[in-house]
Amino acid sequence: MAFSQEKQSEKGLIKISVMYPYAEGKTFDLAYYETKHMPMVAGYLGDNLVRYTIEKGLSNGLPNQPLPFMAIGTFYVKRLSDYQSAVTPNRDAIRADFKNYTDVIPVILVSEVLK
Amino acid sequence: MAFSQEKQSEKGLIKISVMYPYAEGKTFDLAYYETKHMPMVAGYLGDNLVRYTIEKGLSNGLPNQPLPFMAIGTFYVKRLSDYQSAVTPNRDAIRADFKNYTDVIPVILVSEVLK
Repeated sequence: MAFSQEKQSEKGLIKISVMYPYAEGKTFDLAYYETKHMPMVAGYLGDNLVRYTIEKGLSNGLPNQPLPFMAIGTFYVKRLSDYQSAVTPNRDAIRADFKNYTDVIPVILVSEVLK
Repeated sequence: MAFSQEKQSEKGLIKISVMYPYAEGKTFDLAYYETKHMPMVAGYLGDNLVRYTIEKGLSNGLPNQPLPFMAIGTFYVKRLSDYQSAVTPNRDAIRADFKNYTDVIPVILVSEVLK
């Protein structure tokens, strides 16, 4: 019950969306990302983390346009400052793990859930 | 109860993310987007639509980098084909409404929720 209430009140949460652009010839290992990388980062975030999601890019919403992103991992947190405090001392470990699943540089968006 | 169960099983849903890039001098009217545009599009989607979200871009996750997106609107649907069938006959109306809230062209990502 506490869980379902939490899921219904995402308004006001902060999202950190780590978006991996698609480019011809670039690779992304979703299995590694889901089983190793994302749990590792989530483990740094403590109870500031409400949940995290992983999505796989399928296509561009417009015909005949390239896929914008291969994958996106998103952390929903209560406070941005606590996210930053938790990630900063682990930044080297997080970045060192990138090469284990991809050869692209992610775009990172910080946003606020309005609805 | 049906609602909370639905929210807990997003795995497998299709997301259509309409992402509005930030650029110097460009504008985005979040109030219009939230009260007029998104409800209009959502109204076309019927019970294929599980939920939709709106987020406001705050910053780049990396220091000294520009904001990637000003806003993102996302539809979570059960079937991509039904989304396309619902939107196609209304595409002109949807596009004609863009000028009421923004002067940027969105990037549209179709993705699948893995987790």
